Amino acid sequence: MILHYDVLVIGGGHAGCEAACASANMGAKTCLVTMDMNKIAQMSCNPAVGGIAKGQIVREIDALGGQMGLVTDATAIQFRMLNRSKGPAMWSPRAQCDRGKFIWEWRNILDKTDNLDIWQDQADELLVENKCAVGVKTIWGVELRAKAIIITAGTFLNGLMHIGRTMVPGGRIAEPAVPHFTESITRHGIRSERMKTGTPVRIDRRSVDFNEMVVQEGEHDFHQFSYMGKHRVLPQLTCWTCNTNAKVHEILRSGLKDSPLYNGQIQSIGPRYCPSIETKLVTFADREQHPLFLEPEGTDTNEMYLNGFSSSLPMEVQIEALRQIPAFRNIKVYRPGYAIEYDFFDPTQLKHSLESKIISGLFMAGQVNGTTGYEEAGGQGTIAGINAAIFCTGGEPLVLHRDEAYIGVLIDDLVTKGVDEPYRMFTSRAEYRILLRQDDADARLTEKAYQLGVAKTDRFNWWMEKKQCIEEIERFCQTFPIKPRLINGALETMGSTPLVYGCKLEDLITRPELNIDKLEEVIPELKEQLDRLPNRREEIKEAAEVHIKYKGYIERERIVADKMHRLENIRIKDHFNYNELQQLSTEARQKLTAINPETLAQASRIPGVSPSDINVLLVLLGR
Amino acid sequence: MILHYDVLVIGGGHAGCEAACASANMGAKTCLVTMDMNKIAQMSCNPAVGGIAKGQIVREIDALGGQMGLVTDATAIQFRMLNRSKGPAMWSPRAQCDRGKFIWEWRNILDKTDNLDIWQDQADELLVENKCAVGVKTIWGVELRAKAIIITAGTFLNGLMHIGRTMVPGGRIAEPAVPHFTESITRHGIRSERMKTGTPVRIDRRSVDFNEMVVQEGEHDFHQFSYMGKHRVLPQLTCWTCNTNAKVHEILRSGLKDSPLYNGQIQSIGPRYCPSIETKLVTFADREQHPLFLEPEGTDTNEMYLNGFSSSLPMEVQIEALRQIPAFRNIKVYRPGYAIEYDFFDPTQLKHSLESKIISGLFMAGQVNGTTGYEEAGGQGTIAGINAAIFCTGGEPLVLHRDEAYIGVLIDDLVTKGVDEPYRMFTSRAEYRILLRQDDADARLTEKAYQLGVAKTDRFNWWMEKKQCIEEIERFCQTFPIKPRLINGALETMGSTPLVYGCKLEDLITRPELNIDKLEEVIPELKEQLDRLPNRREEIKEAAEVHIKYKGYIERERIVADKMHRLENIRIKDHFNYNELQQLSTEARQKLTAINPETLAQASRIPGVSPSDINVLLVLLGR
Repeated sequence: MILHYDVLVIGGGHAGCEAACASANMGAKTCLVTMDMNKIAQMSCNPAVGGIAKGQIVREIDALGGQMGLVTDATAIQFRMLNRSKGPAMWSPRAQCDRGKFIWEWRNILDKTDNLDIWQDQADELLVENKCAVGVKTIWGVELRAKAIIITAGTFLNGLMHIGRTMVPGGRIAEPAVPHFTESITRHGIRSERMKTGTPVRIDRRSVDFNEMVVQEGEHDFHQFSYMGKHRVLPQLTCWTCNTNAKVHEILRSGLKDSPLYNGQIQSIGPRYCPSIETKLVTFADREQHPLFLEPEGTDTNEMYLNGFSSSLPMEVQIEALRQIPAFRNIKVYRPGYAIEYDFFDPTQLKHSLESKIISGLFMAGQVNGTTGYEEAGGQGTIAGINAAIFCTGGEPLVLHRDEAYIGVLIDDLVTKGVDEPYRMFTSRAEYRILLRQDDADARLTEKAYQLGVAKTDRFNWWMEKKQCIEEIERFCQTFPIKPRLINGALETMGSTPLVYGCKLEDLITRPELNIDKLEEVIPELKEQLDRLPNRREEIKEAAEVHIKYKGYIERERIVADKMHRLENIRIKDHFNYNELQQLSTEARQKLTAINPETLAQASRIPGVSPSDINVLLVLLGR
Repeated sequence: MILHYDVLVIGGGHAGCEAACASANMGAKTCLVTMDMNKIAQMSCNPAVGGIAKGQIVREIDALGGQMGLVTDATAIQFRMLNRSKGPAMWSPRAQCDRGKFIWEWRNILDKTDNLDIWQDQADELLVENKCAVGVKTIWGVELRAKAIIITAGTFLNGLMHIGRTMVPGGRIAEPAVPHFTESITRHGIRSERMKTGTPVRIDRRSVDFNEMVVQEGEHDFHQFSYMGKHRVLPQLTCWTCNTNAKVHEILRSGLKDSPLYNGQIQSIGPRYCPSIETKLVTFADREQHPLFLEPEGTDTNEMYLNGFSSSLPMEVQIEALRQIPAFRNIKVYRPGYAIEYDFFDPTQLKHSLESKIISGLFMAGQVNGTTGYEEAGGQGTIAGINAAIFCTGGEPLVLHRDEAYIGVLIDDLVTKGVDEPYRMFTSRAEYRILLRQDDADARLTEKAYQLGVAKTDRFNWWMEKKQCIEEIERFCQTFPIKPRLINGALETMGSTPLVYGCKLEDLITRPELNIDKLEEVIPELKEQLDRLPNRREEIKEAAEVHIKYKGYIERERIVADKMHRLENIRIKDHFNYNELQQLSTEARQKLTAINPETLAQASRIPGVSPSDINVLLVLLGR
């Protein structure tokens, strides 16, 4: 049987679901191929979304018309804004979610999306004709044909799970691996390699002594993931923390000889910033304790996730080690932690659009590109979905720049630098992090997404309304005069230096010890102005405050970014035969040939390409 | 690693979940071993519970303290009492359920059950020592050890799925099969054979033309599955019906050559009373149409189940055939129907307790015993769970008799007659179906279950209260005098013959054209009596009415059943060496030797054992 579509998405995880929705919302006839409709967007590891830099990505996905933020808000059971003590560029939303409800919320969204079909089956072979991807063949012998194909297979390609010395093939615990499919891709000249990731033990809540743990409560203010403002509906739950100790470490160390990570059984590299507990012991040998976080998996279940205790040690070692922690003396687990090895494809083989440089119409997103994290996957999925839809009709692909979005940083890093370990996002990876805040992803991306058709009218209209509201408040603050006589008493009460001369309200807001919250209490006209907001007063107030407080920083970073844009605008793809340019270093010749960068800016970010190599290219270009 | 329990349950389907809860509620330290905690009690086929005779089984499970009725009520999206036009012995509750919520409701119950752990893993080998089951070894190398082990593996043992000529190993779509485990059982002398079952195509609601279908609404009265009276909470949805036609049949017939059922690919036998559409065409070659029922899979999904169209024909044949039905002209499917072959174990190798005759401490329940249906599985699971717990502490196993419960009929049929096709329950399988009504499963079973400890105090207390209420109404109706002068006007209005002499209220209720509902409108004292009920007025009224109306039939059937009990009380297990009894027919000698019946009554039900053989045994017993 043959089924025809514009866009095929192979895999129903966080990348695949976003890709399928984006493509369908762009108007492409889309089919999501998933092995199991009941496991769509399954959170294979931590039942949480967001976190430092990752939270910003979710806000960007949402601003682009994606779904992860909406699903997270609808299923959140604990919300926190991380890094509150730092500047707003560092603020990162994070939420625990109900794992089961997360899946059904996503199913519900996919079900409601026009142009989107789901086909439950397993891809067995990529079909390629004349270096163009034309479809896949499934294990049930169906041919799904399309103009563009997005691979979002997560850890399923030749997945192999490890616990101690025991190995079991599988894409994820309880699910079969996908053999063959990798080979049908590499056959056409695309390189694949192996990576490793892992997940911790799942604990029975009833066996935990919570008196021996420290409570970690969530926040209950207005913050959320989606700009569309569906607020949290589920009961908000508590998380808990405790620490490992010397006895725990001793037992874990005794198991290292049977650790697949250290006995040679696993050769591939795992996520540096989400290491297993045994890796932490080896890497930080002098640390006497490591923090653990016990997180609920949902409102209706005793299953809990032990964040920080990812492991593939033999299960008796995992459990015996846990028993040395007072809270876990009588611990019962549902299953131990495990590691999984899987295939990924070197992402330097991709264009910024996430289309393969080698097979036309083939897009890749998520863990198959060597990343880790639902948010990184969702971000890539969104871009791959948009660009696959554009590919079908023709047109310039959407490429987000490094000063526009963490998603832009992520993809540029992947395709420019490649990966030698699972890539996760950090704020430190971004040059322009004051421009890439969680509060303003809508400002950065929603108009663009609306023009592409992937963000819908209600989102665009709300953003336009919000933008206007922010501007009005800013204008008000810029112009509203403050008289020393009227304010100095209040300033003193708030521990702020009294005014000598009059100033504008804006000048007070920029003082570190003050904020709009405090000032609206003492300036009735400001309160009046804020009370005039149509709705979502707190969100708009915060956005305006950040604009006012950090205006100088934002403008300065904007100038630096714009300078870099000049290099971004110098397109050099296919312009040079680098091997003939003897002026370049050998390493630069090799790397530039391998990556074939789109722009001079991208060339400058390739590891091994030096500023003097860039100067050579500038000279050759006659600049 | 070795973990120790009293009772292990291998498999988290409808049999396994009931077994685990029953065993844990009896106080046995129980572990449910399941491959996937997110698929617990997955409804692999129709998202519906109950139906003719099956509904009664669910009521019995509930009366025994089981969970299926509670889960069904909590997740029902359409409820109907089938067979309303017939006598109350035939009434059978049936509900569509939300497939996703059904799983989570079950998870929630398991999570709340004391003494019950869940271990997510896959059984690889049954461990047997000295003809006693002592544990299982899993694919991850864990040894789970216990005093009693219940196998509830459904269709997973060496499962092989078929669509047309394509075969894929699997326990169910998207899930791996379990190899090896069967062999670790048969190695000890237990016979296994193969069976086949199938499931229909899943349809995208958005592609259906509902104008071409007939609505089938649910009922909204007080009926429900559980005696514990948690009422339906989900929105109630509509089902739809339509028919196949000649063109559909023509296309299906054209595919028969590629049907695994008819080209020799599948040798094992499928469920006679739940046949595939292609089997219906072959068996009822002269029928011009077959009814189809389109049923929603949940409140939040477009997925719909096409009841009546089970098939393993090539998928293009399935879809092309559907397109010939006006409602399905533009049909989109999520996946085609498929057939699955799997191992089961001849249930005549079991005792009535569901313990193996060959391996002590090994219990089996559900599809591994050759049955089909969630209800049949749940009923067996409940009994296996109870008896495994009793096995651990010692004591007489619970055996339900044929006049006590459909579950008793089911198990007696299985262990006495064996199966040569997937066994499903019908009212016609019961000799005493007036005694086995859906309204009185609590009367039949709850006291017994409470004494065993598997039904809890709240259930028992409610039953005692309800029982007293029913008796009070019955007494009132038996004694309340009716005067012709006062009632004859009303009787005429209701089309009932006027009275000549006075009578008791009871006598009016037994008239076919009258019922308590009608009479309470014209007899204020009856209404007053009913209004005095503490709660659940309608349920109690119905139970009392059935008692009064059918008193004669019930008493007569009770007498017949009690006669048979005399034979049930004559225990003959291990009493004879049948092979030496030349007075018996050869067939009877063979069958009696093979089954080794517990009682003379059971002997009389063995196919091939004639009444004269029974007389021989009676004579030999000196009766």
